[in-house]
Amino acid sequence: MTAIDLSPLTRKLSAFVALSAEELAVLDRLHQRRRRFVPGRDLVQQGQSKQAAYILASGWVCSYKIQRDGTRQIVDFQIPGDFLGLRGLLLRTSDHSFEPVNEIQAAEVLASDLLEAFTSTPRLATAVLWAASRDEALVVEHLVGVGRRDADARMAHFLLEMGARLALVGIGSKEGYDCPLTQYHLADALGLSAIHVNRVLRLLRERGLVTFRNGRVTFHDHQGLVDFAEFDPAYLDQSGPLLK
Amino acid sequence: MTAIDLSPLTRKLSAFVALSAEELAVLDRLHQRRRRFVPGRDLVQQGQSKQAAYILASGWVCSYKIQRDGTRQIVDFQIPGDFLGLRGLLLRTSDHSFEPVNEIQAAEVLASDLLEAFTSTPRLATAVLWAASRDEALVVEHLVGVGRRDADARMAHFLLEMGARLALVGIGSKEGYDCPLTQYHLADALGLSAIHVNRVLRLLRERGLVTFRNGRVTFHDHQGLVDFAEFDPAYLDQSGPLLK
Repeated sequence: MTAIDLSPLTRKLSAFVALSAEELAVLDRLHQRRRRFVPGRDLVQQGQSKQAAYILASGWVCSYKIQRDGTRQIVDFQIPGDFLGLRGLLLRTSDHSFEPVNEIQAAEVLASDLLEAFTSTPRLATAVLWAASRDEALVVEHLVGVGRRDADARMAHFLLEMGARLALVGIGSKEGYDCPLTQYHLADALGLSAIHVNRVLRLLRERGLVTFRNGRVTFHDHQGLVDFAEFDPAYLDQSGPLLK
Repeated sequence: MTAIDLSPLTRKLSAFVALSAEELAVLDRLHQRRRRFVPGRDLVQQGQSKQAAYILASGWVCSYKIQRDGTRQIVDFQIPGDFLGLRGLLLRTSDHSFEPVNEIQAAEVLASDLLEAFTSTPRLATAVLWAASRDEALVVEHLVGVGRRDADARMAHFLLEMGARLALVGIGSKEGYDCPLTQYHLADALGLSAIHVNRVLRLLRERGLVTFRNGRVTFHDHQGLVDFAEFDPAYLDQSGPLLK
């Protein structure tokens, strides 16, 4: 199997565990029920129960929570290789909603599929737990960002984090990446107003660090941006397999 | 085995899965290497690698992240039955620190112990994944709180959440619970100043909803507080076993 054949999930889990042929086959089977979804309709809704989880194969998804007063907090964005609604599968009711940002392809996964996969290849359970732990580390980082970082550092940190995550699944680099997000997505993720988002992006561009324009994030000075944001990617844990 | 013999972790996981005798025995073995820790020294430090994880048997722990400028964001508090550093075990380096709030007892768990437990009883892997998912749902809720709730609702939500979590492991009720936290803990968890914490607690007390005094949280009007905070406990997912 060449690198090009690997699903984004397989690429991602390979950062944690050197997968055996049997484990690769089980992962492959999890991708069987593939479906397409378009923006504008939730994949999974807050409070919904008995829904399936998904493995995202292509496109971006936004996960969010709406307060009773209508304000929205975006919890995270999902990119290829990420699970959608894994928590909802295990927690009976989903604690938040998932909406496609652009057209996506995702494979449906039932609780029974996972249990079966874990029974035949227990190491995969550890790998999925790793992925879930990493997702949690992302949310922790977002909490620290909203709670303790100023707006400029928060934006810089976010753009670097997405770049590192996309690089892991082969669709981003230190040069930049394609990014389908709007200023409203950025505002609701970072706890800023849309106007504030524009001001912060202008500042980062004028300092020669990064440009986000026409659906593309371009790093002009990746290391400068890392220093500016005090970005330490250790929490992303993607520096090669731990389990051989 | 009577309810009184069950470890807090066993009580907690029983909310997700009806545990077999074999699974109970495996959980029991995970509690073998029990140790005592006192406040004032981190159990696990941010950036530390190759550390063990722990299952908390008694006492409270605070998990936090320090920014380079010295500000602290408390991510969550751990209570009996919670894992400490499970993410750090899987993610190589811990993304945050754990400090005992009061004297605690905790059982050390190695990555190999977990892998062995999952191999002999794969359903336990799903149960631990459930617990990890629930921990993540807590952090998501804290992100929404800091990002989108005002200070009064944030405090009320927090006191209710801790009450519900403690009730699940048998050390809290709708009447109240013992709580070893200081105003500084509350401030760093909720993104408030210590003075603001006092003001908010006075308001909640004067409205006849809840009192926090002398290490004890007393609910005067539990339902009133639930309405005030718009507290929906679905994300805690503790309404009886899903897997029979």
